Amino acid sequence: MTSTMTATGIDAVVSAVVTTVVDAWNRHDMKAYSALFTEDADFVNVVGMHFRGRPQIEAVHIDLHRTIFKNSNLRAVSTAVRLVNDQIALAHIAWEMTGAEGLPGWNVPELRKGMMSLLLVGSGDRWLITAAQNTESVPLELPK
Amino acid sequence: MTSTMTATGIDAVVSAVVTTVVDAWNRHDMKAYSALFTEDADFVNVVGMHFRGRPQIEAVHIDLHRTIFKNSNLRAVSTAVRLVNDQIALAHIAWEMTGAEGLPGWNVPELRKGMMSLLLVGSGDRWLITAAQNTESVPLELPK
Repeated sequence: MTSTMTATGIDAVVSAVVTTVVDAWNRHDMKAYSALFTEDADFVNVVGMHFRGRPQIEAVHIDLHRTIFKNSNLRAVSTAVRLVNDQIALAHIAWEMTGAEGLPGWNVPELRKGMMSLLLVGSGDRWLITAAQNTESVPLELPK
Repeated sequence: MTSTMTATGIDAVVSAVVTTVVDAWNRHDMKAYSALFTEDADFVNVVGMHFRGRPQIEAVHIDLHRTIFKNSNLRAVSTAVRLVNDQIALAHIAWEMTGAEGLPGWNVPELRKGMMSLLLVGSGDRWLITAAQNTESVPLELPK
């Protein structure tokens, strides 16, 4: 380990990654989106499918942005960041999306909401996403 | 770093954690379940709620296992493990569940399926979950 990442430093790094994620999504530029991931990255989407490796993540997202997400718009509502250690950070992003289309067996509301976690690895200013998981939010009260 | 974890070693460690997760769930022993998490752990449940810290994870799960999950039975179908570095491992667990009850606004099928990721930190035989996210699987075909 040659660098020491501070809590403030990692907040700025992750904020820049999240901005790039959101901008790439909204331009439907899935090359730029996928370039944020490590070659061996894992990705679990909102319907529980597990994609393995940057090439698969890119291919799936290209297809989705030609179809159901072609008019979608993503917004990061809030981001919580935690350093797991000097070279690993965990981010939880509450997001909203409009303009997505559903599929047979999968209805989406006009305003989608969800929670995405990103696991980032890196040092200095060079951080990449090595794992992502996305979960659609369902508004409900948990029982006590 | 004083130890070097091998791919084989981490498979056995994570397998033991997953067995404990499943056994604790099926005994509805949420003290044992929560004891697997670090004090600062994050947990995103299948409806996108983000819980922070072991005490909150424990309290929520105690309530759920008194109510909608009191007759639920969890099974780990398959587990994929990847070492992120010497002290961090990532597991993806495909799971099935029977006996869970739904809630107003949240219907659950008789046989639930999902994907849970666990981020584990540790060394040697002492590994704990520092982040978990769960996503319910929806059976559908992605568009090409």
